[in-house]
Amino acid sequence: MPTLVHHPLDPASRLIRLMCAEYGVPLDVEEIKPWLREPHLLDLNPAATLPILVTDEDVPVIGILASIHVVEDIYTLETVGGLVPTHPLDRAEMWRLVEWMLVKLNDEVTRYLVEEKIAKRDLKGATPEPSVLRAAKANLAEHMLYFNWLLASRKWLAGDEMTLADFALAAHLSTLDYMGDIDWSKAAETRDWYSRLKSRPAFRTLLNDRVVAMPPSKGYADLDF
Amino acid sequence: MPTLVHHPLDPASRLIRLMCAEYGVPLDVEEIKPWLREPHLLDLNPAATLPILVTDEDVPVIGILASIHVVEDIYTLETVGGLVPTHPLDRAEMWRLVEWMLVKLNDEVTRYLVEEKIAKRDLKGATPEPSVLRAAKANLAEHMLYFNWLLASRKWLAGDEMTLADFALAAHLSTLDYMGDIDWSKAAETRDWYSRLKSRPAFRTLLNDRVVAMPPSKGYADLDF
Repeated sequence: MPTLVHHPLDPASRLIRLMCAEYGVPLDVEEIKPWLREPHLLDLNPAATLPILVTDEDVPVIGILASIHVVEDIYTLETVGGLVPTHPLDRAEMWRLVEWMLVKLNDEVTRYLVEEKIAKRDLKGATPEPSVLRAAKANLAEHMLYFNWLLASRKWLAGDEMTLADFALAAHLSTLDYMGDIDWSKAAETRDWYSRLKSRPAFRTLLNDRVVAMPPSKGYADLDF
Repeated sequence: MPTLVHHPLDPASRLIRLMCAEYGVPLDVEEIKPWLREPHLLDLNPAATLPILVTDEDVPVIGILASIHVVEDIYTLETVGGLVPTHPLDRAEMWRLVEWMLVKLNDEVTRYLVEEKIAKRDLKGATPEPSVLRAAKANLAEHMLYFNWLLASRKWLAGDEMTLADFALAAHLSTLDYMGDIDWSKAAETRDWYSRLKSRPAFRTLLNDRVVAMPPSKGYADLDF
């Protein structure tokens, strides 16, 4: 069974957990705090990023792009409906949105909020910086407007089919929702879409996550939020 | 013929230009300054990122991940030796390093130097911030040490074969070299590797680039630098 070296609130790790759960790939998990930059992690990955997917042959697969491709290439049974569209231009729209989440949404929102609210609790003397929290939440509001706009005319994020792009956004939103940073009252379209995803069996694995001394926001695990 | 909407010094655009040149895919180019955030660009791509690859059927393919996959899926002739390894775990190492360049090297080095040195010339009253330039160059020195270390034991960046990872790093280094930011005297292994890449016919397209009122550094276009 492959092992995922992850942090429960790391959105890239969540994306791989969702993918594997959707595909029915069993996964062992090993929790790590990447911000502590421990030698064990730096030996595996000098970039100190997650996830790391350790294959059955004990080969570490480093980073989100490599992990996505290895799950698709090695661990996906052909009998299972895929998360990658068959038409190249539909795939292109999926990759556009996956890049949006992995780079833009992460850079402008998620990584700041995780760093300020979660990582800083482990770094002596560090406290969340209110101006950073404010900027990240203002950026999040802009992103939510874009997702609402997209989902007003599309069933799924990249079009008519559910794809990896849906899971990439859901991975980020679920982390942000855990920390109580999403105002669902202003996001009707995205809320409807998230509610459909959250009801999938694959999502259960995330909804049971708990971070020590930081309980999830009210509604995090509710299917009716 | 597909058209690449690009900026000559945008490393992600350079990666697609290198890929297409290596694969023998003819490419029209249309230059744009993404930092001006013109309506024409925002209509195509609200993230205002490059590259955008417009297909023969006039469909815009947005962003670097989508463009890489479309070039691989649609425009690569089967007769041409590929830049993506056939074994899934070799591909994983390639994607780890592609992610390193697209995310880490870009975030810590290239995007700051391009913004300070190139973009700010077009933004009224903005001047390069010395502390940002210093931090980016200190980060670059650390990255170069890592590339030297990798290339001391590998023929190509991801192993025995030339892959997309080599082109992803070369795209960034060529932009940094244009701006005169690389100290080759401290990078013997990377210099040897870059010299091999620079001699390939595919690289010629980049070496003729000129940005108005900003000539390239001495040595930029020399094969013996």
